[in-house]
Amino acid sequence: MRTAFYISDGTAITSEVFGHALLSLFPIEFEHITIPFVETEQHALEVISQIKSSFEASGDRPLVFYTMVNVEIGKIISNSPGINYDFLNQFVAPLEKVIGVPSKPEKHRTHSIHEKTYDIRIEAVNYALANDDGSNLKDYQEADIILVGVSRSGKTPTSLYLALQFGIKAANYPFTEEDMGDILKLPPVLRRFKDKLYGLTISADRLHAIRSERRANSRYASMPQCRMELREVENLYRKEKIPFINSTKFSVEEISAKILANTGLKRKKY
Amino acid sequence: MRTAFYISDGTAITSEVFGHALLSLFPIEFEHITIPFVETEQHALEVISQIKSSFEASGDRPLVFYTMVNVEIGKIISNSPGINYDFLNQFVAPLEKVIGVPSKPEKHRTHSIHEKTYDIRIEAVNYALANDDGSNLKDYQEADIILVGVSRSGKTPTSLYLALQFGIKAANYPFTEEDMGDILKLPPVLRRFKDKLYGLTISADRLHAIRSERRANSRYASMPQCRMELREVENLYRKEKIPFINSTKFSVEEISAKILANTGLKRKKY
Repeated sequence: MRTAFYISDGTAITSEVFGHALLSLFPIEFEHITIPFVETEQHALEVISQIKSSFEASGDRPLVFYTMVNVEIGKIISNSPGINYDFLNQFVAPLEKVIGVPSKPEKHRTHSIHEKTYDIRIEAVNYALANDDGSNLKDYQEADIILVGVSRSGKTPTSLYLALQFGIKAANYPFTEEDMGDILKLPPVLRRFKDKLYGLTISADRLHAIRSERRANSRYASMPQCRMELREVENLYRKEKIPFINSTKFSVEEISAKILANTGLKRKKY
Repeated sequence: MRTAFYISDGTAITSEVFGHALLSLFPIEFEHITIPFVETEQHALEVISQIKSSFEASGDRPLVFYTMVNVEIGKIISNSPGINYDFLNQFVAPLEKVIGVPSKPEKHRTHSIHEKTYDIRIEAVNYALANDDGSNLKDYQEADIILVGVSRSGKTPTSLYLALQFGIKAANYPFTEEDMGDILKLPPVLRRFKDKLYGLTISADRLHAIRSERRANSRYASMPQCRMELREVENLYRKEKIPFINSTKFSVEEISAKILANTGLKRKKY
């Protein structure tokens, strides 16, 4: 199997995302090795040895995706025996011409605590945790968005992703049987913040499968119960004109991107 | 201000990460606009109008970072009046030559629920939540790693990041005054899993600031208390040879990358 290296003097997240997206266009498997924080020439030389060993062991030249702010260390990596992709740098000179401003690379500009929105993201994570699963009903005026839906429809991971990645304060509230009674009505605590509500739904099959992993053979996990709850929430979304998304076939990344696109909610971080 | 567009028929996460990393090399501000899930020609034409309006309003040609699996839609975007970066595609043909396999682009290959590790990530998030802040001491045998440290030293956001991004099951345990007594000893529940422990520490100034936002003027937030607790945990880490990291100047992304690099812990997802 061919190896792909992701190397940086920072987290190497950019190299990973770029390299992984590129390699995912090919119908074959790769071995992935990330080496972050290569900040000394000594470390860079060790990395070169590792690339060389991988080449010798597999017979295939490794693919090396790297970003380096330090020019000297970048030069060392650029001489690795792999196929080296200095994939950001090659765009820099043409972009300098376009925008008429010289680049000024500095370390740790992305994915760093020095980003001005970092504290906002951590505060949003704390908010999401404190307001997870209807555990706190009194801080909804602070919410950027309140995700609603039945238990296990994807609210919690989506709230956390919105917080961690975008600094968005997302509360989430589960509709339970107590809310349902004869028919599901919008609880008063949510009606006050109706403009912030965003619904999740999911197919009954998938909900049944997810709940069965938690509590096999329970009424909670049974198909009739799943169908009933989903019918109630979907009716409520339509009646109250609450925007909603069916999460069955989507990842948290996709659900979050769709919510942002549909609501126009402004992220705090890019 | 010049505008940067991030456009895709998927989440546009790859475009955002690439474009943001490139623009962060320049000492100027940009306006950022993400447009995900551009899956029809009609939508693509609307995007072109939006790019055109932005150009006319600002007088500066927008920067357009895009990835498109659908060739026809890609062509439409490639004719936008902005400066268009089809930044992945230009690497594809040379890479095909290198690896001797034709590319086979398919939609939603990255950041999708169809990634085989998706369920593992969601399970890891649920694990991190259930094992947050010492709330559950009986499932540590399932943990890939157990983060330890004083209250507010960064354990929870790091656990969640490790889970969401990498599918790593991270529990976290806060050392409290109850654990400290005269001197902090390793609680028996942790000693059984000593190989999984990873310590966090933080500067007393920063801990004092974070705790003061939570409980101003409390003993909990006071400098002497912060100093005492940090001295105890750092002594414990050294005595018990628990690897640890000072989180003061690092983001969750950086802390997580360093933990993976230092422990050799295998991520479940790339």
